[in-house]
Amino acid sequence: MLPALELPAPLGAPAAPDGVLRQAVAVDVDAVIALLTDDAVAVSRGHGADAFARDDYLRGFEAVAADPSNAIVVAELPGHGVVGTMQLTLIPGMSRGGASRLLVEAVRVRADLRSGGIGAAMMRWVTDAAAPTLGAALVQLTSDAVRTDAHRFYERLGFEGSHLGFKYRVPR
Amino acid sequence: MLPALELPAPLGAPAAPDGVLRQAVAVDVDAVIALLTDDAVAVSRGHGADAFARDDYLRGFEAVAADPSNAIVVAELPGHGVVGTMQLTLIPGMSRGGASRLLVEAVRVRADLRSGGIGAAMMRWVTDAAAPTLGAALVQLTSDAVRTDAHRFYERLGFEGSHLGFKYRVPR
Repeated sequence: MLPALELPAPLGAPAAPDGVLRQAVAVDVDAVIALLTDDAVAVSRGHGADAFARDDYLRGFEAVAADPSNAIVVAELPGHGVVGTMQLTLIPGMSRGGASRLLVEAVRVRADLRSGGIGAAMMRWVTDAAAPTLGAALVQLTSDAVRTDAHRFYERLGFEGSHLGFKYRVPR
Repeated sequence: MLPALELPAPLGAPAAPDGVLRQAVAVDVDAVIALLTDDAVAVSRGHGADAFARDDYLRGFEAVAADPSNAIVVAELPGHGVVGTMQLTLIPGMSRGGASRLLVEAVRVRADLRSGGIGAAMMRWVTDAAAPTLGAALVQLTSDAVRTDAHRFYERLGFEGSHLGFKYRVPR
C-alpha cells in the first residue's frame, strides 16, 4: 500500500455521487479478480476467468499490500460494491531532474457501468490528487494498441500517447 | 537498490569482453547524468545538460538507492568508465495471475559506443538473468515514438511493441 494516499476519498463522478475510492483490502480480492478477467483483451491473451488459480491472484494482492510503493485502489458504489480497480506504483528516478513517476496499471471498470464517468473520475483523482500528494511529476501508463476507445479516453484527460510500449514474456 | 540482483556480472558483449554490469553508486552520479542528458529526445523535451541542478539528480539517485524495488544499473568498460545506464523497477501485481513485472526505464549507451552490442548485452542480461532472478514474468518498457531505431532494437531482442504509452505531466 501507499500510506501517503489520502484515502478513502469521494470518487467525484457526477453520475455516482456516493461513490468512494479506497485502498483494496483482502475481502476485495474476488471483486478485483472479476474485473481483471472480465476483459476482452485479457481473455484474448489467455488470461480469462479460469486461467489462473485464486491463490495466484491472492499472492499478487498480498505482495502489493506489503509494498510501500504500490497500491491497488478500488472504486465502490453503494448498492453495487466494487466497480473499478487500478494499481498505482510510485517510482523514483534520476531522469527529468530526479522526477518521481506514478505508474498506473490494470485499470478496469465493470462492463455494465462503463462510459458513465467512473473511469474518468478515477483517473482525475490520480492526476489531480494522488500524483501531487505523492510528489510525482509524471503519471504514465500503457494501453494495449487494440484499445482505441481507451486511447481517446486518456487523450481527453490530457495524456499524450507519445511512446510505444514493449513487453517481453520471460520464459518459465 | 534491488539487493537480489546478482551483480557485478560480466556484461557479455562480444566487442567488450571486459565489460561489467553493477549497481550504480554515488560516485557514478555525474556519469549517469551525462548519459541521460546527452540524448536528442531529452534535449527536445527541455531536459538537456543544464535543465536541472545536480542536486535534483542526486536526490533522485538517493531515492532509488534507498528503494528496495528499484536499481540503477551501469555498464562499465575498463578505460572508458561508465558507458551505459538503465533503471529497473520490480512491480508486484494481481494481473496475469499475480505476475510480477520488471520495468526498464532510462536506458542509455554512450553516443560514441552505440551499435557496438553494449545495449543489447544490457537488455539480454535483463531478460535472461535479472528477470528470472527477481521472479518477474514480464519485462516491460516504453520508448518514445520518434526512436524508431530503438523500436527495431527491442523487437530484435524479442520484445513486442503491443502497447501505446501515455504520459501526463503533473502541473507544478
